[in-house]
Amino acid sequence: MRRLIVFNHISLDGYFTDENNDMSFARNPRPDAEWDAFVSGNAGSGGTLVFGRVTYELMASFWPTSMAAEQMPDVAERMNSLQKVVFSRTLDIVSWQNTRLVKSDLAHEIRKMKQESGEDMVIFGSGSIVSQLARENLIDEYQIVVDPVVLGKGRTMFDGTKEKRTLKLVRSRTFNNGNALLCYEPRET
Amino acid sequence: MRRLIVFNHISLDGYFTDENNDMSFARNPRPDAEWDAFVSGNAGSGGTLVFGRVTYELMASFWPTSMAAEQMPDVAERMNSLQKVVFSRTLDIVSWQNTRLVKSDLAHEIRKMKQESGEDMVIFGSGSIVSQLARENLIDEYQIVVDPVVLGKGRTMFDGTKEKRTLKLVRSRTFNNGNALLCYEPRET
Repeated sequence: MRRLIVFNHISLDGYFTDENNDMSFARNPRPDAEWDAFVSGNAGSGGTLVFGRVTYELMASFWPTSMAAEQMPDVAERMNSLQKVVFSRTLDIVSWQNTRLVKSDLAHEIRKMKQESGEDMVIFGSGSIVSQLARENLIDEYQIVVDPVVLGKGRTMFDGTKEKRTLKLVRSRTFNNGNALLCYEPRET
Repeated sequence: MRRLIVFNHISLDGYFTDENNDMSFARNPRPDAEWDAFVSGNAGSGGTLVFGRVTYELMASFWPTSMAAEQMPDVAERMNSLQKVVFSRTLDIVSWQNTRLVKSDLAHEIRKMKQESGEDMVIFGSGSIVSQLARENLIDEYQIVVDPVVLGKGRTMFDGTKEKRTLKLVRSRTFNNGNALLCYEPRET
């Protein structure tokens, strides 16, 4: 059974994007070789990427470009070659390579995908997907990077959560650039 | 010159209170002697407490009660005996012992208080005060406890922040109960 992991940067006020769906606050705040190694290690792992429409469109407009290939060649190569699934009721076609569009029931499809063999599935961004899957108890781990930044306004990935949820802190790590990685699993209660 | 420190618990979605100004999510999620020692150490330090009206009323309705004295005797004793300042344009009297009401300009008064001798000043809760003082660059340190909990809705202490602010992570610590303490200073840029 494959695990479903959420990997997101958040600001200190809890936002994974600013109010314009911009995630550029999460760019490396200052040079840090240890952080760069961590990012490359993440990019080197396999698995399937899972997106909602908004994050998909953001990613699909950047990673296939020559700008991405020049700025972050390793990550761009992986982002383009990995299997991707985008959930959207409104999209009709997807042009980014290795992407599959799913228009049907999100939770049903994720349950099916989790039964398949293969490496873990990872969600980036995609707040509406995260909050829906959290409600269905389908997220196995949250890998949250708290960036040393305050945005003032933005979107949280837990919007729409109706009741308080308690998680279990399973791992943590801080970096010289000021990022703090906090990893949580849902609590079985 | 006295430093001004913000100490707040936040949920993983960035809220220091839920949508009803309730901070009870921040109660110790599970027994943890190391956490208890950390809290007692904090309560043992001196200094002046600084509040906005909403948090003041919450605190003033709890800490002087016999329930507080029974449940958390050490902390209650300190909360009652410490010097407190509440900023409010609407309050007319304050009944909690050792409390001074300030109705005039917040930033001006804080600048004056920072010049006085004595131990550090600490803000709990008080989102509107935090965001105003952050804009005036009057906060010297943010001590943020990220609790392993998702609330879905609530208030951030940085509401009203107009532009992105970058901070410097200066210290961090995690506890077995799942709390993660992240301490930041403003960046001088």
